[in-house]
Amino acid sequence: MTDRPAPDRLIIALDAMGGDRAPAMVVAGADIARRHVPDVEYMVFGDEARIRPLLKRRPKLAELCRIIHTTDVITNDVKPSVALRAGRQSSMRLAINAVAAGDAQCVVSAGNTGALMAMAKFALKTLPGIDRPAIASFFPTLRGETVMLDLGANIECRPEHLVQFAIMGSIFGKAVLGLVQPSVGVLNVGAEALKGSETLKETAARLRDMELPGTFHGFIEGNDVPAGTVDVVVTDGFTGNVALKIAEGTARLYGEWLKRTFRSSIFARLGYLLAANAFRKLRNRTDPRQYNGAMFLGLGGICVKSHGGTDAKGFSNAITVGVDLVRHGFNEKVKLELQRFGRSVRPEAVAAPGAMTA
Amino acid sequence: MTDRPAPDRLIIALDAMGGDRAPAMVVAGADIARRHVPDVEYMVFGDEARIRPLLKRRPKLAELCRIIHTTDVITNDVKPSVALRAGRQSSMRLAINAVAAGDAQCVVSAGNTGALMAMAKFALKTLPGIDRPAIASFFPTLRGETVMLDLGANIECRPEHLVQFAIMGSIFGKAVLGLVQPSVGVLNVGAEALKGSETLKETAARLRDMELPGTFHGFIEGNDVPAGTVDVVVTDGFTGNVALKIAEGTARLYGEWLKRTFRSSIFARLGYLLAANAFRKLRNRTDPRQYNGAMFLGLGGICVKSHGGTDAKGFSNAITVGVDLVRHGFNEKVKLELQRFGRSVRPEAVAAPGAMTA
Repeated sequence: MTDRPAPDRLIIALDAMGGDRAPAMVVAGADIARRHVPDVEYMVFGDEARIRPLLKRRPKLAELCRIIHTTDVITNDVKPSVALRAGRQSSMRLAINAVAAGDAQCVVSAGNTGALMAMAKFALKTLPGIDRPAIASFFPTLRGETVMLDLGANIECRPEHLVQFAIMGSIFGKAVLGLVQPSVGVLNVGAEALKGSETLKETAARLRDMELPGTFHGFIEGNDVPAGTVDVVVTDGFTGNVALKIAEGTARLYGEWLKRTFRSSIFARLGYLLAANAFRKLRNRTDPRQYNGAMFLGLGGICVKSHGGTDAKGFSNAITVGVDLVRHGFNEKVKLELQRFGRSVRPEAVAAPGAMTA
Repeated sequence: MTDRPAPDRLIIALDAMGGDRAPAMVVAGADIARRHVPDVEYMVFGDEARIRPLLKRRPKLAELCRIIHTTDVITNDVKPSVALRAGRQSSMRLAINAVAAGDAQCVVSAGNTGALMAMAKFALKTLPGIDRPAIASFFPTLRGETVMLDLGANIECRPEHLVQFAIMGSIFGKAVLGLVQPSVGVLNVGAEALKGSETLKETAARLRDMELPGTFHGFIEGNDVPAGTVDVVVTDGFTGNVALKIAEGTARLYGEWLKRTFRSSIFARLGYLLAANAFRKLRNRTDPRQYNGAMFLGLGGICVKSHGGTDAKGFSNAITVGVDLVRHGFNEKVKLELQRFGRSVRPEAVAAPGAMTA
């Protein structure tokens, strides 16, 4: 590959050693992504002796790749704090560093989530105006897709964190999804303003008072997420993580029941054969690989986490998610919006009498 | 009906005016329950002029019913505090009072949840050793059914509350579900002991140290709930409420996708006709009415909340849930177990040096 890409060319840093079936899954994933997202080149971080043969079989991909050799790997059982101290030469960390140094515009890893977040936070820092990055992902709904954040980066959140998630989520809806006025809902146990914890009530009060890049819908309930009531769902990382996994588990339960139903009689089996074509479409729609690629929003560089157990197709989707974030200038738009809306995020800081005498 | 039932007879107090289609739905529901649970009589609280004609058409049910006339109704928009003060002559409150007075063994209502909980707490009190009642319900899983609590009574919980939920949940598993050693899991964002909030870590530490009426499995994740990893899922009311509604919404999403799939082509329609019998079974299994009847556990009397939007079949299920709790002596067993395990619930109270000098 060329050392200096044209300005419309984009470089992705791949952690080739993260994920259950790495590096084969990562390389095969990049090869699928190559066909969907043109003008992308790859920095491939990992064990050259294992990556080189994989690329040899894919000459078109090989032309777009540069291997950066390292033998150090962050395993799944390593604690974030240990990864930070001892993982400085790991494929994951070096891939993040490439984004921090401006050599790549995005990092994609299927490795240890906690370690990736800790190292990305350390090396990329948070965007000005954002206190904590959030994990965001798509949720399939009756009306299409909803983006939800946080999905696990922040177990406990204060109102200002949730307000920042709402801003990032609505900018995502505008910039990446192309929505004119994305609607934002805060996940709660009821739609009435009086419901929920003090943190949620305070969050809603602030969102009602400020100018958002979208519209504030108010509180929503759990069933509103799959119903697609809003475009952006804001919640703390504990609730978001439980919600995502409950939905995934329920989908698996229904898939299993459906399979058992079609196997339960000879008529049902015949019925399946007739409906097979229609069910292929349903299977594509409910394929978890379609939703693979959790975005770490609020960092000084684009970072996408792929599911560790995914395959090449799922990993290619995570690459596409990263490319979308870069190509739509997500981070630049967050910075701009936070400058525009910065004052209204913390109105009390402007109104504080102490500020007058300073 | 007879004034003094035989000891194996059971009296249920029905709030005939609660629910979207009350009182017709309530009376029709009791008529369905009559065929499933024998030796049950009903005290029917509500507007006699409306209930009487409904019973006239059901002579067998009428024999088992006594109407207690009242015109006052708790509507869905009434706040719990207002219901407590102003609803003393309501059908809901009088039905609860019947349990408090020992005239009935269980109350079933499809009315306002918050009002029902507030009035039940006031009139029935909590069981000794239980600080806060919890809402429990069944969750369909790959392995059958799991009981989950709390589903919304307590938005924020301290470790002692969650420990009490674990005790009640495991007694429920033993006494009502007939499990020898029900397994109890605490819902968290990961299975490792280091995950989650301080409240959850403290809860797990206490549950590990104490003798439970079942076995403590440890932390579970959202996907473990529909997978059926444990028999009893313990969580705070906020997380439980979101989890339940996410699962319900996801089920509805899949049902809708399935419907669209079968309608998408002529072959798919034919396939459905062939598989129709098998799908009837699936529909029964996924019928939300099967899971209707949320139990308020930890009160000095049995109280079951039916979904307000359910129909007669769903309401009859809520009655059956109440009958099961009474017939299996749930409350008596909780009292016994709390006496037996009471010391280990709050070990610090025993170990406190102040206790020695008292």
